Amino acid sequence: MKNFKMSGKKILGFGEIMLRLTPPNNQKIIQANSFDAVYSGGEGNVIASLAMFGHDTKFVTKLPENYLGDRVLNKFRGYNVDVNDVILGEGRLGIYYSEIGHGFRSTEVIYDRKYSAISMAKKEEFDMEKILDSVGLIHLSGITPALSNELYEFLLDLIKECKKRGILISYDSNYRAKLWTIEEARGFLEKILPYVDFAFLGYLDMINILKFEDIEDKFDKKLESLYKKLFFKYPNLKYAACTTRKVNSINNNTLKGYLFNGENLINSNEYTFDILDRVGGGDAFTAGILNGILKGTDERRTVEFGTCASVLKHSIIGDVNLVNEETINSLIDSGLCNIKR
Amino acid sequence: MKNFKMSGKKILGFGEIMLRLTPPNNQKIIQANSFDAVYSGGEGNVIASLAMFGHDTKFVTKLPENYLGDRVLNKFRGYNVDVNDVILGEGRLGIYYSEIGHGFRSTEVIYDRKYSAISMAKKEEFDMEKILDSVGLIHLSGITPALSNELYEFLLDLIKECKKRGILISYDSNYRAKLWTIEEARGFLEKILPYVDFAFLGYLDMINILKFEDIEDKFDKKLESLYKKLFFKYPNLKYAACTTRKVNSINNNTLKGYLFNGENLINSNEYTFDILDRVGGGDAFTAGILNGILKGTDERRTVEFGTCASVLKHSIIGDVNLVNEETINSLIDSGLCNIKR
Amino acid sequence: MKNFKMSGKKILGFGEIMLRLTPPNNQKIIQANSFDAVYSGGEGNVIASLAMFGHDTKFVTKLPENYLGDRVLNKFRGYNVDVNDVILGEGRLGIYYSEIGHGFRSTEVIYDRKYSAISMAKKEEFDMEKILDSVGLIHLSGITPALSNELYEFLLDLIKECKKRGILISYDSNYRAKLWTIEEARGFLEKILPYVDFAFLGYLDMINILKFEDIEDKFDKKLESLYKKLFFKYPNLKYAACTTRKVNSINNNTLKGYLFNGENLINSNEYTFDILDRVGGGDAFTAGILNGILKGTDERRTVEFGTCASVLKHSIIGDVNLVNEETINSLIDSGLCNIKR
Amino acid sequence: MKNFKMSGKKILGFGEIMLRLTPPNNQKIIQANSFDAVYSGGEGNVIASLAMFGHDTKFVTKLPENYLGDRVLNKFRGYNVDVNDVILGEGRLGIYYSEIGHGFRSTEVIYDRKYSAISMAKKEEFDMEKILDSVGLIHLSGITPALSNELYEFLLDLIKECKKRGILISYDSNYRAKLWTIEEARGFLEKILPYVDFAFLGYLDMINILKFEDIEDKFDKKLESLYKKLFFKYPNLKYAACTTRKVNSINNNTLKGYLFNGENLINSNEYTFDILDRVGGGDAFTAGILNGILKGTDERRTVEFGTCASVLKHSIIGDVNLVNEETINSLIDSGLCNIKR
Amino acid sequence: MKNFKMSGKKILGFGEIMLRLTPPNNQKIIQANSFDAVYSGGEGNVIASLAMFGHDTKFVTKLPENYLGDRVLNKFRGYNVDVNDVILGEGRLGIYYSEIGHGFRSTEVIYDRKYSAISMAKKEEFDMEKILDSVGLIHLSGITPALSNELYEFLLDLIKECKKRGILISYDSNYRAKLWTIEEARGFLEKILPYVDFAFLGYLDMINILKFEDIEDKFDKKLESLYKKLFFKYPNLKYAACTTRKVNSINNNTLKGYLFNGENLINSNEYTFDILDRVGGGDAFTAGILNGILKGTDERRTVEFGTCASVLKHSIIGDVNLVNEETINSLIDSGLCNIKR
Amino acid sequence: MKNFKMSGKKILGFGEIMLRLTPPNNQKIIQANSFDAVYSGGEGNVIASLAMFGHDTKFVTKLPENYLGDRVLNKFRGYNVDVNDVILGEGRLGIYYSEIGHGFRSTEVIYDRKYSAISMAKKEEFDMEKILDSVGLIHLSGITPALSNELYEFLLDLIKECKKRGILISYDSNYRAKLWTIEEARGFLEKILPYVDFAFLGYLDMINILKFEDIEDKFDKKLESLYKKLFFKYPNLKYAACTTRKVNSINNNTLKGYLFNGENLINSNEYTFDILDRVGGGDAFTAGILNGILKGTDERRTVEFGTCASVLKHSIIGDVNLVNEETINSLIDSGLCNIKR
Repeated sequence: MKNFKMSGKKILGFGEIMLRLTPPNNQKIIQANSFDAVYSGGEGNVIASLAMFGHDTKFVTKLPENYLGDRVLNKFRGYNVDVNDVILGEGRLGIYYSEIGHGFRSTEVIYDRKYSAISMAKKEEFDMEKILDSVGLIHLSGITPALSNELYEFLLDLIKECKKRGILISYDSNYRAKLWTIEEARGFLEKILPYVDFAFLGYLDMINILKFEDIEDKFDKKLESLYKKLFFKYPNLKYAACTTRKVNSINNNTLKGYLFNGENLINSNEYTFDILDRVGGGDAFTAGILNGILKGTDERRTVEFGTCASVLKHSIIGDVNLVNEETINSLIDSGLCNIKR
Repeated sequence: MKNFKMSGKKILGFGEIMLRLTPPNNQKIIQANSFDAVYSGGEGNVIASLAMFGHDTKFVTKLPENYLGDRVLNKFRGYNVDVNDVILGEGRLGIYYSEIGHGFRSTEVIYDRKYSAISMAKKEEFDMEKILDSVGLIHLSGITPALSNELYEFLLDLIKECKKRGILISYDSNYRAKLWTIEEARGFLEKILPYVDFAFLGYLDMINILKFEDIEDKFDKKLESLYKKLFFKYPNLKYAACTTRKVNSINNNTLKGYLFNGENLINSNEYTFDILDRVGGGDAFTAGILNGILKGTDERRTVEFGTCASVLKHSIIGDVNLVNEETINSLIDSGLCNIKR
Repeated sequence: MKNFKMSGKKILGFGEIMLRLTPPNNQKIIQANSFDAVYSGGEGNVIASLAMFGHDTKFVTKLPENYLGDRVLNKFRGYNVDVNDVILGEGRLGIYYSEIGHGFRSTEVIYDRKYSAISMAKKEEFDMEKILDSVGLIHLSGITPALSNELYEFLLDLIKECKKRGILISYDSNYRAKLWTIEEARGFLEKILPYVDFAFLGYLDMINILKFEDIEDKFDKKLESLYKKLFFKYPNLKYAACTTRKVNSINNNTLKGYLFNGENLINSNEYTFDILDRVGGGDAFTAGILNGILKGTDERRTVEFGTCASVLKHSIIGDVNLVNEETINSLIDSGLCNIKR
Repeated sequence: MKNFKMSGKKILGFGEIMLRLTPPNNQKIIQANSFDAVYSGGEGNVIASLAMFGHDTKFVTKLPENYLGDRVLNKFRGYNVDVNDVILGEGRLGIYYSEIGHGFRSTEVIYDRKYSAISMAKKEEFDMEKILDSVGLIHLSGITPALSNELYEFLLDLIKECKKRGILISYDSNYRAKLWTIEEARGFLEKILPYVDFAFLGYLDMINILKFEDIEDKFDKKLESLYKKLFFKYPNLKYAACTTRKVNSINNNTLKGYLFNGENLINSNEYTFDILDRVGGGDAFTAGILNGILKGTDERRTVEFGTCASVLKHSIIGDVNLVNEETINSLIDSGLCNIKR
Repeated sequence: MKNFKMSGKKILGFGEIMLRLTPPNNQKIIQANSFDAVYSGGEGNVIASLAMFGHDTKFVTKLPENYLGDRVLNKFRGYNVDVNDVILGEGRLGIYYSEIGHGFRSTEVIYDRKYSAISMAKKEEFDMEKILDSVGLIHLSGITPALSNELYEFLLDLIKECKKRGILISYDSNYRAKLWTIEEARGFLEKILPYVDFAFLGYLDMINILKFEDIEDKFDKKLESLYKKLFFKYPNLKYAACTTRKVNSINNNTLKGYLFNGENLINSNEYTFDILDRVGGGDAFTAGILNGILKGTDERRTVEFGTCASVLKHSIIGDVNLVNEETINSLIDSGLCNIKR
Repeated sequence: MKNFKMSGKKILGFGEIMLRLTPPNNQKIIQANSFDAVYSGGEGNVIASLAMFGHDTKFVTKLPENYLGDRVLNKFRGYNVDVNDVILGEGRLGIYYSEIGHGFRSTEVIYDRKYSAISMAKKEEFDMEKILDSVGLIHLSGITPALSNELYEFLLDLIKECKKRGILISYDSNYRAKLWTIEEARGFLEKILPYVDFAFLGYLDMINILKFEDIEDKFDKKLESLYKKLFFKYPNLKYAACTTRKVNSINNNTLKGYLFNGENLINSNEYTFDILDRVGGGDAFTAGILNGILKGTDERRTVEFGTCASVLKHSIIGDVNLVNEETINSLIDSGLCNIKR
């Protein structure tokens, strides 16, 4: 196990925070008279989860300078995330509406994220010096560069500056077809992969985005040889990780996690579970893996921890994985769950 | 596939709309301090679902002339159903209380539907000329004639008048033991079957109500030969359809749909799914089948469409199947369900 | 009293429908985990209220072609408004967040209405022929032209086309400082006033927007002479109307209505009342006045009706005045309110 | 002060219990998707309040033998009322829907009480022997005889039997125009007044129902002389009591109580207060007065107690006055209200 | 089957009632702004369930003399439990917070029960004469003696006094590790077992607390021989009963019940079911078994009844099993569950 | 105006945080099935409000080391208060239940705060060095010393240490009769007043606790001469401040603020307003006054700011005054309140 301890440095996330509006009680929008409100985003979910695990964390974004921006700051401060360098200014908060499915009814998402404050920000608005001060690791995702050219450019600059300063780089591919094309995503991914230390991408990312050739084999074998190819091409990579999900029904899935350390593919147990809220399940996995890596946990345990973190997130309303390490460890150790009196 | 396109004509439903009062959050009545309110009825559910599929629809009933009647009109107008010929007058809105079960606790229903405005209406109150104007298909069910002698008589008249005008007749047997006896139900069913085009009735209806002789065979075989017998007796029938349901638990059922075209019994796939609200599941199937028939969809696809419509209804709170064709088609085509971003 | 009976023609509204998101129970956004959702807009509120009074109504707007657009159609259909000519297409639904005040805490509004589907619509998208078919009166407001140049131009065309067809024009000045300047508002108002029949504007509109000279006198006298000046300049005007509001506290206001018929200023009684939801109070007044005018009610009664309509709206959650004529008449006649058993 | 101590005997109430369905948060029925549920009735409210004051109480009615009947029993048992002699049987539970008004919007009530189990009961179903066992006082109201001829007859028998057994009789006139005519009410009232000990009726009852001649005088004087006339005619009467209410607005009323002891009219202070739920305000007064009489409290204090009981009821959601004696006494003594830490 | 009919005597429970505070909708405490409130306790749950089955019941505890104490009395009176001998006095109501788990997230409980009114009560406060008057069976549990030395001593006295008076004794071992040690529990259990008639304890109780030697065998065999040993040692025992639970996931368990009559171990069918609220599942079993014993039901049916009672409790929100005998019998008889129209 | 700018130093609060449990919708505990949950305390409310005004703040207390403690930290972090020196350990979170009154029904409070973690803490648990690091002002209240002898002693030590370090001391008398006697409160107050800079105490504190002699005069005169006497005796005092409250009804009060600068008594305007939640109104005043003092605002404006802060708090659910400076200034400047679009 390599040593990636932070030793007093912060974990930084950068990306968009959106308002998720969800009709309560599995209602459809056409019948709802209210929406439950959650403020979240891929990178922010990872950072908040790491804060719950006791890491020193920080998040930077741009928010509208109004009560909605205040609410986001209030939420992330509550998670113990440093938001002092968030930029407040003109613009709107991106929104997405999600109808939570059930049984065979899919969860459906309506995006209303265009023209958000961060997507319309100029890269000059972000003060790199302040943002990266005391940072030991940065976590980014493929959502942000897809939001605007300015953010695309800023992320490239940011990643290079991080490398220069010896800041570790974690990157979640997180492809969103509504935001950019496969080709655009590949362009960006290929530009930044030479800088990345921890890559959260999986089979479909390598086949569809990176256009790696597929092979006929059992899934675990295929994934391992794809990861080997990836690490051969980008020898800077330290770890890659992903999960596979089987959708038994909208409210019951099966999940399995994988961690590749450059040589071996280590997998977690497989978990089949009922779901309360699936959003943020991937971010919970990412945070769990990063927690293991940064705390120097054994790799087999790390992938189990990441997977169990994700499994538990599915039992929590909202995007952020509000469990602590103890809860996850207790699930790993017991394999059981029960009333804890 | 026969052609039953409506070409500018309306689909009409006639029947009772009731107020369903349900303790929230699976509570029992003894512990509830409020009731969720849904306004619905078998025929109305079918019509509303057809309106969601884009058909030109109309519904006729009698409602109390007060804010409850207004609420029903408001609801059905919202679904895009023409309710301009609904009669408002003296009387009460029928009610049923339903305790939603879970696990091994059954859903229990307390009826308080006696003396409702429609059940006490005189048949003269309904102006057949206005009601049937521009109508291409009428959908009725076995609940309405069981409500009163007046409605029994009016339905017979209505059906005969429809036949005279070349209006297609869809009929859902929908036997309710609390409203009339098996014998009464048989009497009515035998009177109207010679007029019906699309019959929504199944194995138990033919064995118990029509007293067809049962045979020893696999279920699908039995059902097919019973339907053949039915169509032999009533050669006017164009289609018959039904579902079979296996109750794994109150919140998990298995459903399979059948469509008989006079020659072959076509069945859908079998679906096992968790349930949010089962009421209206049969009506959703009926609407799905009628949609396929009226749009000239392939018969195999039609029965799959009807069954998937019903499956999806079970994931929706309230009696009305608030999904559109696209959602159903997407379930049929993918066989999968997932977050749709 | 002049005769403005519709005789089978429709009352048309055109404008934007927005989603209002309100933290429940007077919470501030910073403490809320959900929002109550209301779909409304100035012109739509007037039309829905007129539909509640029994008028034949229609509304045209552009909505996003998704479940939010469907929800708006469902809501307005429910109010019995014809929405068949609404355009569905690309874009977002405008939003505003409102923190409902209390005591000395003001209601605060955060607008997120930019880039909405209607504000980005091209005027060619609206088919004037279809829109104006069978219309007897059109109701517009000063919000719409402030949304975009396209809508500014379309409204001018629409108004001229209405005049050409003999369609009555009702216009509510409704100045919104966040949308355009006083000068822009004046420019538009002066362009369209020569076409308007019923003008809903008051003292501040004439002083601040139209730059009429103020005079020293009692308020009612001042208002009357300003209106006389207005009618002198725009002899096409048939009626002008407005209310004055005294804010005793955020949850207690005093309201008085005025109607000018070209010669005399007629005023209503003054009402002091507690408030549940103030939004839409002005639109309720407008609808009440139009109802009186269109039904040929006595002018004194018309202004009382409009004012009482507005007073009652303040006791109703949501923007639309969900009361019928009987409730308003009963308030006028009794001056009393009580439990009606 | 006369002595009416119960010395181990029970206070019995007889009458109908209904389900009150109220849209939450002051909504109108047309916009509500749920109803708050309260189970109550005039006589039951009085008995439950007396139980809260520590009296030994009992209530008899007929309820449907289903979960709704169980819920009513559960509720009244919770208040510490003996319901062991309630009859369970066929039939429905009477309902009324109430839209809670605000400001100038009246509370509106839709009755759906016809055909209820008790209104269709035969008088033979009630076992007078069991019902009156150990009873010291019976409380009845003018609602019950208006429900059916059977109940009309049963109440007459019951009252006569009470007199025979020396059971005190309390009667609340409680005229409901929707249930019977003024003439019918007078017929019954005149039949039973010769048996009544404590009469809860006021100015309008004596003028409108009993057709006493009105006189020109200040209200208190008029009321006193009407009461004197009443007691002259019915010398059996021990006390009469009533309140007067001024409706400042639907959510703000002024209340004053009166107690007549055969010689003098004693009045309470006048209270002006905001209202949460007005229903049951009169029953709370009745219970307060009976409590004073039965505990031998000073008459001046008794009328203040009854009035304050009623005032406090208006601050409580639901029909039953859920306050204890201490709360009422504390209001009387302090005249103040505050946070009690 | 032995005869344990109560013949007019009461079933008494004695123990603590606590306030359970649960974040709604499966939320975690860190995200909740409200708590659902349930007032319950092991012995109270058994008594309330027996009252629902029609038994004459009584409960004794000590409660704080404030609105919380009143609420507990109100709740238990509502269940038709005699609480007239409950002591009201100084002190607090014990609380526990429970985060309801889901999927693989365990339900977690935070106890705040120390210093509760009953745990600080002196044994002299309880008047044994009054408490035991007319009692035929007493139900106790191992929670109460663990609360304080006073209660430990009082329970011993109470049990001996019951024996003296011929009152049947039912005892649920109910070991709580947070309240006392295994050794303390054993000490008490061995002291009282010689007096117990119906013992609710199972495999783990006999192995861990009573330190019976474990044997290698199939579970049912092991349990039977352990029970035989127990009955050999304590020949006073009439019945012992327990369930085994398999936790498939937090919201899906498998349950099987056992009843030992001194000679044979009788087991129920095995039930696998989804869970709404697990708390009180064991108490529901106990009440079901006692109901069978006291009504002289066949033993095989009794254990099925107890198990089905417990299964149904898992579908009910709150600790008390709000179902009646009919619902349980219908589950036993049909093995099916469905909508009951 | 003296200069008390913090120049980079923190404002520290020390005291207890409790869980407030409130039945929703003005219900009484006897009818409530849930409680709204607020985590707050006098000193914490002041600190959170100062954080909302942009001050650098910190809070120290002892909390139970469980999810409830986590929730409190989450809440205060959200307000942007540094809680890194809060002690987590054994024990419970103090609770109080509050029934929110209305009209003439008083708000009633049931305390369950005994044995809380902080009240049972040893003073050695608090590390004074860490607590006071970088602190410029400390805010304390008379609640904390009343909780335990340990806290009494610790507060004395803390105050002396603050004086030694030149840390400003703000003290709110906040007498709670349920916690200690007048004599005990006087003992403490007299011990610490020689160290206090800003004293939040008023007329009743000086008359009842400090036993200053009352004089016959107008209230403002009396208050001024009492304050003069206080400042003469404790010349270290810089400011004293208080409000007077007139309780028109539980939901309508009148408030006026006073600030004494050693020479003159400056008063605010008087405000009469409807109330949503009164708790924390005094703390909001304190925070408003401290904000004015620390920012060097004009004294007249400071007292107006404090009073308006308090007035606005009454319109906010929960104890913490969630408004910013802009909202308060806007109320002061306009004297008006309205919809802000």
